[in-house]
Amino acid sequence: MSRAAVRTAGPDTGLLSPVRAGTPVEAAVADDGWVQAMLDAEAALARAQARCGTIPAAAAAAITAAARAPDFDTRKLALASRETANPVVGLVAALTARVAARSPEAAEYVHRGSTSQDVFDTGAMLVATRALKLIVADLGAVADALAGLAAEHRDTAMAGRTLALHAVPTTFGLKAAGWRQLVLESIERLEPLAEGGLPVSLGGAAGTLAGYLQHAGDGADPAAVLAELVDAFADETGLAAPVLPWHALRTPVADLGAALAHTTGALGKIAVDVLVLARTEIGELAEPAVAGRGASSAMPHKRNPVLSTLIRSAALQVPALAAVLVQCLPHEDERSAGVWHAEWQPLREALRLTGGAAHTAVELVRGLTVDPERMAVNLAATGGQLVSERVCAVLAPKLGKAAAKELLTRASLRAAETARPLAEVLAESDALRGVLTPAELTALLDPAGYTGAAGPLVDRALAVGRFDADT
Amino acid sequence: MSRAAVRTAGPDTGLLSPVRAGTPVEAAVADDGWVQAMLDAEAALARAQARCGTIPAAAAAAITAAARAPDFDTRKLALASRETANPVVGLVAALTARVAARSPEAAEYVHRGSTSQDVFDTGAMLVATRALKLIVADLGAVADALAGLAAEHRDTAMAGRTLALHAVPTTFGLKAAGWRQLVLESIERLEPLAEGGLPVSLGGAAGTLAGYLQHAGDGADPAAVLAELVDAFADETGLAAPVLPWHALRTPVADLGAALAHTTGALGKIAVDVLVLARTEIGELAEPAVAGRGASSAMPHKRNPVLSTLIRSAALQVPALAAVLVQCLPHEDERSAGVWHAEWQPLREALRLTGGAAHTAVELVRGLTVDPERMAVNLAATGGQLVSERVCAVLAPKLGKAAAKELLTRASLRAAETARPLAEVLAESDALRGVLTPAELTALLDPAGYTGAAGPLVDRALAVGRFDADT
Amino acid sequence: MSRAAVRTAGPDTGLLSPVRAGTPVEAAVADDGWVQAMLDAEAALARAQARCGTIPAAAAAAITAAARAPDFDTRKLALASRETANPVVGLVAALTARVAARSPEAAEYVHRGSTSQDVFDTGAMLVATRALKLIVADLGAVADALAGLAAEHRDTAMAGRTLALHAVPTTFGLKAAGWRQLVLESIERLEPLAEGGLPVSLGGAAGTLAGYLQHAGDGADPAAVLAELVDAFADETGLAAPVLPWHALRTPVADLGAALAHTTGALGKIAVDVLVLARTEIGELAEPAVAGRGASSAMPHKRNPVLSTLIRSAALQVPALAAVLVQCLPHEDERSAGVWHAEWQPLREALRLTGGAAHTAVELVRGLTVDPERMAVNLAATGGQLVSERVCAVLAPKLGKAAAKELLTRASLRAAETARPLAEVLAESDALRGVLTPAELTALLDPAGYTGAAGPLVDRALAVGRFDADT
Amino acid sequence: MSRAAVRTAGPDTGLLSPVRAGTPVEAAVADDGWVQAMLDAEAALARAQARCGTIPAAAAAAITAAARAPDFDTRKLALASRETANPVVGLVAALTARVAARSPEAAEYVHRGSTSQDVFDTGAMLVATRALKLIVADLGAVADALAGLAAEHRDTAMAGRTLALHAVPTTFGLKAAGWRQLVLESIERLEPLAEGGLPVSLGGAAGTLAGYLQHAGDGADPAAVLAELVDAFADETGLAAPVLPWHALRTPVADLGAALAHTTGALGKIAVDVLVLARTEIGELAEPAVAGRGASSAMPHKRNPVLSTLIRSAALQVPALAAVLVQCLPHEDERSAGVWHAEWQPLREALRLTGGAAHTAVELVRGLTVDPERMAVNLAATGGQLVSERVCAVLAPKLGKAAAKELLTRASLRAAETARPLAEVLAESDALRGVLTPAELTALLDPAGYTGAAGPLVDRALAVGRFDADT
Repeated sequence: MSRAAVRTAGPDTGLLSPVRAGTPVEAAVADDGWVQAMLDAEAALARAQARCGTIPAAAAAAITAAARAPDFDTRKLALASRETANPVVGLVAALTARVAARSPEAAEYVHRGSTSQDVFDTGAMLVATRALKLIVADLGAVADALAGLAAEHRDTAMAGRTLALHAVPTTFGLKAAGWRQLVLESIERLEPLAEGGLPVSLGGAAGTLAGYLQHAGDGADPAAVLAELVDAFADETGLAAPVLPWHALRTPVADLGAALAHTTGALGKIAVDVLVLARTEIGELAEPAVAGRGASSAMPHKRNPVLSTLIRSAALQVPALAAVLVQCLPHEDERSAGVWHAEWQPLREALRLTGGAAHTAVELVRGLTVDPERMAVNLAATGGQLVSERVCAVLAPKLGKAAAKELLTRASLRAAETARPLAEVLAESDALRGVLTPAELTALLDPAGYTGAAGPLVDRALAVGRFDADT
Repeated sequence: MSRAAVRTAGPDTGLLSPVRAGTPVEAAVADDGWVQAMLDAEAALARAQARCGTIPAAAAAAITAAARAPDFDTRKLALASRETANPVVGLVAALTARVAARSPEAAEYVHRGSTSQDVFDTGAMLVATRALKLIVADLGAVADALAGLAAEHRDTAMAGRTLALHAVPTTFGLKAAGWRQLVLESIERLEPLAEGGLPVSLGGAAGTLAGYLQHAGDGADPAAVLAELVDAFADETGLAAPVLPWHALRTPVADLGAALAHTTGALGKIAVDVLVLARTEIGELAEPAVAGRGASSAMPHKRNPVLSTLIRSAALQVPALAAVLVQCLPHEDERSAGVWHAEWQPLREALRLTGGAAHTAVELVRGLTVDPERMAVNLAATGGQLVSERVCAVLAPKLGKAAAKELLTRASLRAAETARPLAEVLAESDALRGVLTPAELTALLDPAGYTGAAGPLVDRALAVGRFDADT
Repeated sequence: MSRAAVRTAGPDTGLLSPVRAGTPVEAAVADDGWVQAMLDAEAALARAQARCGTIPAAAAAAITAAARAPDFDTRKLALASRETANPVVGLVAALTARVAARSPEAAEYVHRGSTSQDVFDTGAMLVATRALKLIVADLGAVADALAGLAAEHRDTAMAGRTLALHAVPTTFGLKAAGWRQLVLESIERLEPLAEGGLPVSLGGAAGTLAGYLQHAGDGADPAAVLAELVDAFADETGLAAPVLPWHALRTPVADLGAALAHTTGALGKIAVDVLVLARTEIGELAEPAVAGRGASSAMPHKRNPVLSTLIRSAALQVPALAAVLVQCLPHEDERSAGVWHAEWQPLREALRLTGGAAHTAVELVRGLTVDPERMAVNLAATGGQLVSERVCAVLAPKLGKAAAKELLTRASLRAAETARPLAEVLAESDALRGVLTPAELTALLDPAGYTGAAGPLVDRALAVGRFDADT
Repeated sequence: MSRAAVRTAGPDTGLLSPVRAGTPVEAAVADDGWVQAMLDAEAALARAQARCGTIPAAAAAAITAAARAPDFDTRKLALASRETANPVVGLVAALTARVAARSPEAAEYVHRGSTSQDVFDTGAMLVATRALKLIVADLGAVADALAGLAAEHRDTAMAGRTLALHAVPTTFGLKAAGWRQLVLESIERLEPLAEGGLPVSLGGAAGTLAGYLQHAGDGADPAAVLAELVDAFADETGLAAPVLPWHALRTPVADLGAALAHTTGALGKIAVDVLVLARTEIGELAEPAVAGRGASSAMPHKRNPVLSTLIRSAALQVPALAAVLVQCLPHEDERSAGVWHAEWQPLREALRLTGGAAHTAVELVRGLTVDPERMAVNLAATGGQLVSERVCAVLAPKLGKAAAKELLTRASLRAAETARPLAEVLAESDALRGVLTPAELTALLDPAGYTGAAGPLVDRALAVGRFDADT
């Protein structure tokens, strides 16, 4: 193959990332969306400068009119970016040409006083904002569906499991409330960012805004121009005005990474729980049944839990991408040679995977099939062992804590070895004679009677956080 | 070597982690500190239960009195933890024995209704709180010192550098203000956690508090006991009361990781900048001179920038540790077999490295030597090229933007190739004849005159954030 | 707390890392072990120089005699390392003093022509070699035990599981053979390193060996001295002679990280499989029963799978540490300010976790309890569904592939919905009338008859790799 | 936006990843390439089955003829993959339809006995092989160019730099030889994989090959069929025959990740060194000058080192992707729900970034401009301080090692403080009177005379590794 640049590239179809294939966020963060966002940044900058009186309003209008991504060749911009290490140099040239075709005079004002990073980073924050709005909406839908499940199953007893084994009973309502709590915590982190919390980037060549000021004229008061221009740019984009240019102060990107990793982690928790509970031998949960969904290329009987699988696949990837982003904080000089550039693709990928996972989770939790009967069957499977803690607590004041635990430990072992119910084994114990009647023992060993504060915990959890009655 | 457990292990001296060797945070997060914190959790739980009337006050007092780490054999607990996959089972046995030695009755109330995770996680949050207080204090000192540097060097011009090359001028004050901004952002993330924002863990065996309720007696109202006990425990520990038990909802740990990675990233930005500016050929900054500091085992002339080196070494490690922590969010069941256990050492290591980096940074920024003369020399090194943008801006209205940029691009190239000042090359340009006088050109090409809004940006940055007048 | 260095630090007990607490590798990589290895490097260097005739043999002997770690204060070295960013400067001073106490003349030859990095890195490779020998031995024991399990259970049928659900049958022997294969692949990666494959570091102050040559005298032929000294140093340490000094060429460390991450990943695969198969509802495997092992602080009936839990906890951490190490390849200059220093603790931690995981795995696999009856029960749980693929294959030539798959898909769905055996549902199918007799159907649907090449695959796997008959 | 799948997605242009935009590897690993590789796997499987006599040769021919990616709708496959969590189910359906259009009989033999993972993983190994061939070729070109630089500059003295400061002299030839050594080490890791070392995946539904055997007929000997089919499939694809099906034994993918991370790390080392040496104040290296290359959107004078910047951006990302891959080793069951799926995109991205970095590096090293005069100027900048080690070595036998080092340390400090040459300061020293003449001192302090074994090291390095005279 020649060393000449390859002039075509395939579509980005999501073939290797089904968690986001065809989801709305995929389109929002695609290359074309990124080009549009950078054009939006250029146009907003021009309008902001017009508001500050440093360029003519007509020029800003002409620039805004020309800033339409479909008129630009994204692939050409990408290829050109190899020469300058970023796509803005080429974009500015192409935008200037398009503006010039309508108004040569306006073309003089394109990207005036600006620098690639101002446009790229502001564009990135616009893309992120657009993606986050979609993500937050999906997370809200997830939280709402989980609130419904938690309320419905407030008192549905099931085995609590720790270190892979039955521990003590819990309820499915409490599990769903816990999932929702995590999702609400993700919303807490993302929503302020989605609602205008991400900052514009405005610093000029090295973060001093010198270029912008130079164009503002000799008599301009730098402090006044600075404040006015930053505020106008923030207003035009719908983004926030930062204290300082953040060319080399990468908190916004690092924070995005952390919040997205939290989100896929939260959704991943739901996924791994569903995957455990959907196991053939456990069968307490099933993914929503959809014709053809979960089919195997080999096995006709399979209904694979594909939604959880996809969500988990995202949760396994985003933390590494977030680590790349936070590693970019030590960003040397006023703009790094390489550290800045390493952020772009991981940021997009993290947004895309998170958006895909959130979109997938809506379908998962809305359609989740809960099988309380199977939960009851499994609860009974150990013949009462999973309430051994309770019997211990009842006996402790009578026998002493250590003796009670020793007694239960031995009886549980015997029950397990002989495959007999714990109640039966305990009933034979001399130590219990006169201490607990068989009826008391039986009542104590009913798992459904030992769910502690699960119900009130569900109430407590549902009392906080948002409810979208109309969703 | 026999497969029997090795009964001794060396001290943890910091030999391989000099960034934290001997710093206060190292002691705060050491194994002994962790044992003390878990004992503090047990004692606080007992006192909380006593406040709720579910155990006798005398028992709580006896447990509190016995909960002194120096009386416990940390190594023995560590070895025992291999049998149970956590150190709490052994700790509870040892604590029970110590309490029993004073009061057999009180021993019945040790760890009553509790589970290992409640004690371990509450202990971890106490350790983290103690470490974070040290870290926040050091970060405050760093921010204050940087405020001083920013104010002092508000107008000290230096070369702004992007992609490794001189770009346009900036000021050292703006650089210092940027560093401070990042540090303030870290404080914003850590301070609320250090001030009681981290939660107690209280859930019992599987997060339902069933054990605690069982001991509260049959007539107890679960909702009331729950609320009262959680609040009392939070109050006794100084930690926050969570909405739900977070055994399997690991936001507190994931968030700590993210905030610590931000912090070492922020300090790492300072370090990489100092390392660039301390280079032999650049020489604009130097680390504080201390006798013997920075010595080489080979080269007598070396004064290595060791503080920045150590800080950077931490910044390179913490993001990976934070990634481990956020990866632990998908935590199956009511307690994971392995995911929970994977958090412990990375959390401690992240706290320790961050604490070491913050402590080291105090010394770095307080003693930083700034050389404004060398900055001026370097500013002049390219003979005016780094203000080419400015000349371009001035010429654009006269020659057109494209023509102006083309002119400057060619002149800069010629100046670089011939090693002549840009002013001299430009002065020969036909295009400039009658457009700019040589005197105007010389004035335009003075780098110190092109620092844009650097000064007002410093003012803007210093107007926000805290000032500790008394530090 | 004063800013003065804290003079004490607690022991490193493994409290937060039970996977390695008390294991042999823990001692091998402890701070004291590291000091000994660096002293071994200094002594070997002196002996190598003596062999080359550049220092007196008596000096080398005196240095060797003095190079005993117990005579050095590791904590003091750690604290001193903050001043120089590495522990070697202090170690050389202390070693020189100890040698001088015996022989002032010999003291002149300590660390002659050398640099900190030569000593630290050679020491690190010695530590790694010592740890790897332990690890490889443990992995060999794991592989041997797995070979036994694979052979014993060559034909023990069990459910193959994919995407959390029963798929088609497999055998436990094949699963064990697969585990062993991964372990053998780890041994392949580690054994050559453990057997002298790791290189000495010998470069002097900046990798040119100039200091060593200077001391070799004016007439020395650099090429000859270089070759002779490197070979002698390699010979004295038992390490390999590298082509070039690797101060800034960090392949040995990056490769170690990759191989260790592979190893904990391989062991982690075993752990996650055991954790699935030990679940209460599945119960096909159990960890070795040891009195007190797996106890819970709350629940008397629990026998937690702690060995798998600990191994998994290591597998979740080492990849991140390995990522730190490979990220250190872009190591600027002849020695990086910070990148080198970031390697040390992650390398040790990766060795320690891997060693702990390997040691733990020996116990896990040697004592693993396999329950073929439970496997058979679970195999039968879906009433033949997990051989639907087979029926499909038999019917395809008769009905066409698509029709056969459609038939089985529908029948499986009906069987699942009605909780009836697939055979029964299929027997009612008009399409099968005259195609398969009920007896043929029953035979086809026997899961134990559909294990494919599982047996020959076990044979194939056991035919490769090593067998230690005497282990 | 509706929840319906979005039917279009933008092109994958490389806009956010200029390091690979338009490079050959980008096309090799694109979605369409992946589809082709999976089709190649299906076709090779059919041919292998035909060779084993289990399907008709004509069917294999028809399947092979139909297996052309341009005839398939990649986006449609991607969207369908959300329903089944992998793209193979849809691909098999589409391929079957295309084969059926030509030969309904042959369509019966598509994907016969197979499973999605066999096809996907074999396809992935084919894609990786194709990408690695490109990468290895580019790395070979890099190594050759570096061999040329090393030979040419064998004796070009320059400052060796450690911890950001001048240390002792080295040569640019040695630096280039070191870069080459790293690249050769990458080739060592990748070339065997590129040359047929990656394995086919062949296991059937759960790794027992039961489906394949079922179709081979009742009388078939499983061991014979297994061996014959695996070998035939390996032969048809050009890949290796693994010992066992590796559905859940993910060494091939983990190893690929490690080798790719090593490669970008090796290239990243070159990049960070170039970035240091290209700094305005240092100026010893420059990237190849190409018109328009390295232009800034703001600053006409800039010639940004974009190639190094792009390479470094890749080196910052691949380690995290490799960490994801090695984290996927703990892959539960016979096929994980999510862990397998998490590998795909990171594997592709790692291949693509590495391929882009290698392609970029060819251009960087072939055109690298070396400025020996600037190296000489910088060498002289510290007035001899960077040979202080040498003077120390000469004085040690005369004054004692400690006294000599003390003398040089003080003199260096004085020279630095007074900005005088070290020779001048030393000449005033009483201690040197009668020990060294001024002429001897001057000779000793010539940096070019203290490059140690740099030359022989270059020779040693160039004597190993491959030379492609004809490249």
